[in-house]
Amino acid sequence: MRIGVLGTGMVGRAIAGKLVSLGHEVMMGSRSADNEQAAEWVASAGANASQGTFADAATFGELVFNCTAGAASVEALRSAGAQNLAGKTLVDVSNPLDFSQGMPPSLFVCSTDSLAEQIQRAFPEARVVKSLNTVNCEVMVEPSKVPGEHEVFVCGDDADAKQQVVELLQSFGWPAERIIDLGDLTGARGTEAYLLLWLRLWGALQTGYLNIRILH
Amino acid sequence: MRIGVLGTGMVGRAIAGKLVSLGHEVMMGSRSADNEQAAEWVASAGANASQGTFADAATFGELVFNCTAGAASVEALRSAGAQNLAGKTLVDVSNPLDFSQGMPPSLFVCSTDSLAEQIQRAFPEARVVKSLNTVNCEVMVEPSKVPGEHEVFVCGDDADAKQQVVELLQSFGWPAERIIDLGDLTGARGTEAYLLLWLRLWGALQTGYLNIRILH
Repeated sequence: MRIGVLGTGMVGRAIAGKLVSLGHEVMMGSRSADNEQAAEWVASAGANASQGTFADAATFGELVFNCTAGAASVEALRSAGAQNLAGKTLVDVSNPLDFSQGMPPSLFVCSTDSLAEQIQRAFPEARVVKSLNTVNCEVMVEPSKVPGEHEVFVCGDDADAKQQVVELLQSFGWPAERIIDLGDLTGARGTEAYLLLWLRLWGALQTGYLNIRILH
Repeated sequence: MRIGVLGTGMVGRAIAGKLVSLGHEVMMGSRSADNEQAAEWVASAGANASQGTFADAATFGELVFNCTAGAASVEALRSAGAQNLAGKTLVDVSNPLDFSQGMPPSLFVCSTDSLAEQIQRAFPEARVVKSLNTVNCEVMVEPSKVPGEHEVFVCGDDADAKQQVVELLQSFGWPAERIIDLGDLTGARGTEAYLLLWLRLWGALQTGYLNIRILH
């Protein structure tokens, strides 16, 4: 599949690298067409990797990942262009982290709304699916970096888009029975707010290679 | 130990009942000294159970549990009396749930503050420890109601008070290695916000007998 990955940070490179390794054609998008981090990634990732602007990557992708920083996501997606996202599955892995008050960060949206819903409202023709934002980027694409069986979540308003993401998650190494469907996109209020606990666990356990198993 | 339990709802009755079964003397506190739910509980719980006003229960307890509804907690604690809470460990198991917009509830404080911190600021001489708010009241006092090994959290600004709560948790059936110390009371931002995920999991899994195991 042709996939656009917006964002050249650790998350974007991890997702884009995994997608190329799985045989997808991936264009990494950023503010400028000649972003250095994207160029380095393209040089190392081989023939199926390319780079461009946010708009180039969104146009290229049949499916698009939002891997930009949460605070910059809506602006980045505006650069990508609503028309280039229309009808496409947009996998939002970002978190609404606010670093302005120091560490640990707080959230700039919480409880009665979520970043995923803000994105969906700004781009009503995109099919937003929230996923993977509850683990660090290495665990996203290699769940076995955390020992044992543990969970990843999906939520979104479009069932077909969600199913497409579930299949991608399985190709990343997440077992089908460990992928929990939280329902519509308001479920992102839960997975984004969980970051506040995740950050405290990171502090207490001194590792970001952590995840939760749901027992019931 | 003499323990005051503020609140006559499901959480208060579960905590109070467990404490009596463990040999503690427990006074359940409510707005009125003759609250019917408290009277029923006292009648069923035996010689070590009594009831009174919030102030009676706070005065009685060497340690106090706040099991009132989050939205009513600060007012209930004002009724209990700052002077009756001073120097005592105050175990806050409440959640800042806002039911005013329907189900699932949202939180009336989130991200940059927490209900536990609001309580600590309102009662600076109490030694607030946040715990048990991440599981339903039956699981609080009988962790084996959820199969497998799973976690409970403590946080607070007073190390001795926190240790006292850790020992109580162990007496409730939580293994020492499953009790995670999240540090100071700002950790409550994490455990209270987690409720937003818990509520979605409840919806998705159709059971409130659920908890998380932290893998790392």
